[in-house]
Amino acid sequence: MDLKSKIRVVEDFPSAGISFKDVTTLLSDGEAYFEAIEGCSKMLEGVTFDLIVGPEARGFLIGAPLAVKLKKGFVPIRKPGKLPYETIQHAYELEYGTDVLEIHKDAIKPGDRVLIADDLLATGGTAKAVCELVEKLGGTVVGLAFLMELDFLPGREVLSGYEVWSTIHYTS
Amino acid sequence: MDLKSKIRVVEDFPSAGISFKDVTTLLSDGEAYFEAIEGCSKMLEGVTFDLIVGPEARGFLIGAPLAVKLKKGFVPIRKPGKLPYETIQHAYELEYGTDVLEIHKDAIKPGDRVLIADDLLATGGTAKAVCELVEKLGGTVVGLAFLMELDFLPGREVLSGYEVWSTIHYTS
Repeated sequence: MDLKSKIRVVEDFPSAGISFKDVTTLLSDGEAYFEAIEGCSKMLEGVTFDLIVGPEARGFLIGAPLAVKLKKGFVPIRKPGKLPYETIQHAYELEYGTDVLEIHKDAIKPGDRVLIADDLLATGGTAKAVCELVEKLGGTVVGLAFLMELDFLPGREVLSGYEVWSTIHYTS
Repeated sequence: MDLKSKIRVVEDFPSAGISFKDVTTLLSDGEAYFEAIEGCSKMLEGVTFDLIVGPEARGFLIGAPLAVKLKKGFVPIRKPGKLPYETIQHAYELEYGTDVLEIHKDAIKPGDRVLIADDLLATGGTAKAVCELVEKLGGTVVGLAFLMELDFLPGREVLSGYEVWSTIHYTS
């Protein structure tokens, strides 16, 4: 199946000049969603890890089904105030302003091998912040898996030193 | 497996007097998460539907893996401004104030049979709002599936007229 053809491109969202890759049209197609998770699973063959970590909210849509398929635990990364137990935070720069992500303090034990999953690799800012949170808790990032990657943005450079896998690539 | 024993109870979150059921401790246990989704799948045996709809963000953690397991499409319900294409909204009352949820206008076609999935049935406010959105688009709600239900709150009454399934029950 041509999974890329299932993804809608919405122009000028969230702001002018951005061609937003709208994954919801793929997710709402049961065969396509199943194949997308199969594809992520196949590209990770031979990779050993204990847990999948994913940032809210679209990261849950890739990381959670992948975790259940592979019988791994899933750890959500959330915006401040959403997680009920003790957390640590990481703040990171956006184009305009700062964003903050949280993880439960006891969600990762030192030595845990962690796969990070999200729907899209763009600038790599969120993904790098997730790596920082995992490492602050003593986890080892074995790599990052994305359904889609924007090859024309510097996501891979920002994540240099980490393994990065993506199933669908956009060159513009 | 006793899935309930995997769920942490955090007292006084998000406000005093609330015993918050923290599902993250279940999700981070690969065997438990797998069994939880198996359990949801089993309680739905014989139920016919086309799509699963779930509200952000914890609804994605149940609805998305269930959709992939059952090879159904998944439609996310989001807070305003997150969905890139044309949406419809539904506003509903909270204890203090109002909340608004959105769905893509073309995510459900008239006649689609929709299962709604979320982690927790409490007061039923969010679940009812999701039903309204599905029905505004002409979909038929075949029922609502929850991992957990707070039996001491009026969720089922609020959803009367709909089928409701839950795997884990709390009486306090």
